[in-house]
Amino acid sequence: MNQEKINFNAGPAALPAIVIKQAADAVLQYKNTGISILELPHRGPEFLAIIEESKALVKELCNLGNDHEVLWLQGGGRLQFSMIPMNFLTPQDTAGYIDSGHWAAEAMEYGAYYGHIQVMGSSRATHYDHLPEWPQEIPNHLKYLHITTNNTIYGTQYAHVPKINVPLIADMSSDIFSCTRDYSNYDLIYAAAQKNLGTPGVALVIVKKELLSRIANHVPPMLNYKAQAHENSILNTANVSGVYTSLLMLRWIKEKGIANIEAENNRKAELLYNAIDNSSLFTGYVKNPAHRSKMNVCFTAVNKEIEQAFLKLCAENNIIGIQGHRSTGGFRVSIYNAVEEASVITLVELMKKFETNS
Amino acid sequence: MNQEKINFNAGPAALPAIVIKQAADAVLQYKNTGISILELPHRGPEFLAIIEESKALVKELCNLGNDHEVLWLQGGGRLQFSMIPMNFLTPQDTAGYIDSGHWAAEAMEYGAYYGHIQVMGSSRATHYDHLPEWPQEIPNHLKYLHITTNNTIYGTQYAHVPKINVPLIADMSSDIFSCTRDYSNYDLIYAAAQKNLGTPGVALVIVKKELLSRIANHVPPMLNYKAQAHENSILNTANVSGVYTSLLMLRWIKEKGIANIEAENNRKAELLYNAIDNSSLFTGYVKNPAHRSKMNVCFTAVNKEIEQAFLKLCAENNIIGIQGHRSTGGFRVSIYNAVEEASVITLVELMKKFETNS
Repeated sequence: MNQEKINFNAGPAALPAIVIKQAADAVLQYKNTGISILELPHRGPEFLAIIEESKALVKELCNLGNDHEVLWLQGGGRLQFSMIPMNFLTPQDTAGYIDSGHWAAEAMEYGAYYGHIQVMGSSRATHYDHLPEWPQEIPNHLKYLHITTNNTIYGTQYAHVPKINVPLIADMSSDIFSCTRDYSNYDLIYAAAQKNLGTPGVALVIVKKELLSRIANHVPPMLNYKAQAHENSILNTANVSGVYTSLLMLRWIKEKGIANIEAENNRKAELLYNAIDNSSLFTGYVKNPAHRSKMNVCFTAVNKEIEQAFLKLCAENNIIGIQGHRSTGGFRVSIYNAVEEASVITLVELMKKFETNS
Repeated sequence: MNQEKINFNAGPAALPAIVIKQAADAVLQYKNTGISILELPHRGPEFLAIIEESKALVKELCNLGNDHEVLWLQGGGRLQFSMIPMNFLTPQDTAGYIDSGHWAAEAMEYGAYYGHIQVMGSSRATHYDHLPEWPQEIPNHLKYLHITTNNTIYGTQYAHVPKINVPLIADMSSDIFSCTRDYSNYDLIYAAAQKNLGTPGVALVIVKKELLSRIANHVPPMLNYKAQAHENSILNTANVSGVYTSLLMLRWIKEKGIANIEAENNRKAELLYNAIDNSSLFTGYVKNPAHRSKMNVCFTAVNKEIEQAFLKLCAENNIIGIQGHRSTGGFRVSIYNAVEEASVITLVELMKKFETNS
């Protein structure tokens, strides 16, 4: 079982043990169908029930009603980087992007294949060690403003985002369902599943129906949000087992409750940031506490020897996935919903022990 | 286990019992990693080994060398319907399509979003009950000719395809690795995995390196074959567990051997077509034996009562997935590689018993 390792990977990330058990059972046989979830027809009653329950749970957890469509797509966040401008930009149009990190910048690069891009704030000059200031004014001609609510590589996160005057599109791949949030502020939300919502190969999209009416006619059905919504996410053969794993995660989230999850995430982050800030060996990458991510805690060691020694110590203690992204180095500890508080306590104790012995 | 039902579904289709067992084990824990395949990092050594072994097996089974790239993508066949013209057609260009069935026609419709389409043969007028004649001459200006080697809904299949004078692109979703074939004749082959190659959420693409040099610059990386090849199919977070299931299928295919699989597929198809042709209650949809698919056997009953009675009898005998596609009605029995000869014998015996008792 997955309990053998303490898994702080940034994604694909740790899943709850119960979800892994249920997913494995479904591979052997889905319910009493006599077949595996890997063989389950995408147009049969069982998968339709999976789709409907998962859509209802997403809306319930986001406190959204009939103004929104919930879609289960393939291709991860990067296909959304393409689909968003493909659906909502023509070569004459302009979209705004906030350049708050690596993925935000990449989303922007994809946008530039389809239309004009206006950078509405950037922290690139200081290697994304803080959140760009929120734009004071947003031009009405922008077809949308794209933001990334949590920046995994650097460990910054928007705690609150105001309602704005153009459609607001957000990549929430790494912090969806991690905290209470006014989801109705957003016109389109997308999230690759492999962090808080399941396993790779599935992307969740939540889109206001009103926005669907703005889609250009030149987008073929497979890449067209309106067509996908019309076909209830089974326009083509869905990733049946992947969507089922997301449903298992949604049930798990509902049972815990987002308020409880948020409280636990706050405690986990506080534990870890306190350990870093009180250490003479480690330094937090993001200095401003208001900008710090509660999902990805990034820090560096005073020198390469200390870094390597601590990585070695963690490996010896069955702790995996704490190495920083290749572009930043250092450490990144991802503490998504499924990472238990006890795991963070274990890591923090190891940091203290390491400091004492160094 | 999946042995409880005899599964003739058209896709997602039956998988070998051993593959289901191995896939379930990997969900509990992948090898000795201490984590589930659902959590396995896409950039770690374990997944790289999965990618490399699966690519090598595809090339070995197709008898292809270093002139080809093997890609594992998401989005199924329908994303390929888009990516092919997106990569190889501009609005001024023309591509040829053979209109041999529902999916062939849909691929053509997607092509028309990106360039000009020339129909190089069609059997639409007779509801695709035979294969269109192979084009006598193929204009050199065509950017490619697209064919569908096996037409699932109607049950037709190209046994042999000649070498041609423009790039040949084939949808082999429903018959890849089912028979010996000169794969080097094709410039791009694609196959959604959920028939002969695994579970939904994965698409295999085999493409000649020479063709990659013809890709237009306006295609963003996620949708660009050249970029995907350059990044070894992990341009973004791959569907790790889905690709692993495909690897399990490839190992299973290699162990059986394609020549043996082909011989068994021939026997399975012969058994079933003989039963249909010798029956007074059932009629084969495709009359010309040379056009008949060895993967999907389509037939109708003399009337609706017989159809319903036989469906009921099959359900009582734990046989599932034989209902025809909603566009044709009747029956469709899919006998992909993983469907055992014994399952076909059971069905054929039930057909004979039904005929005797009717």
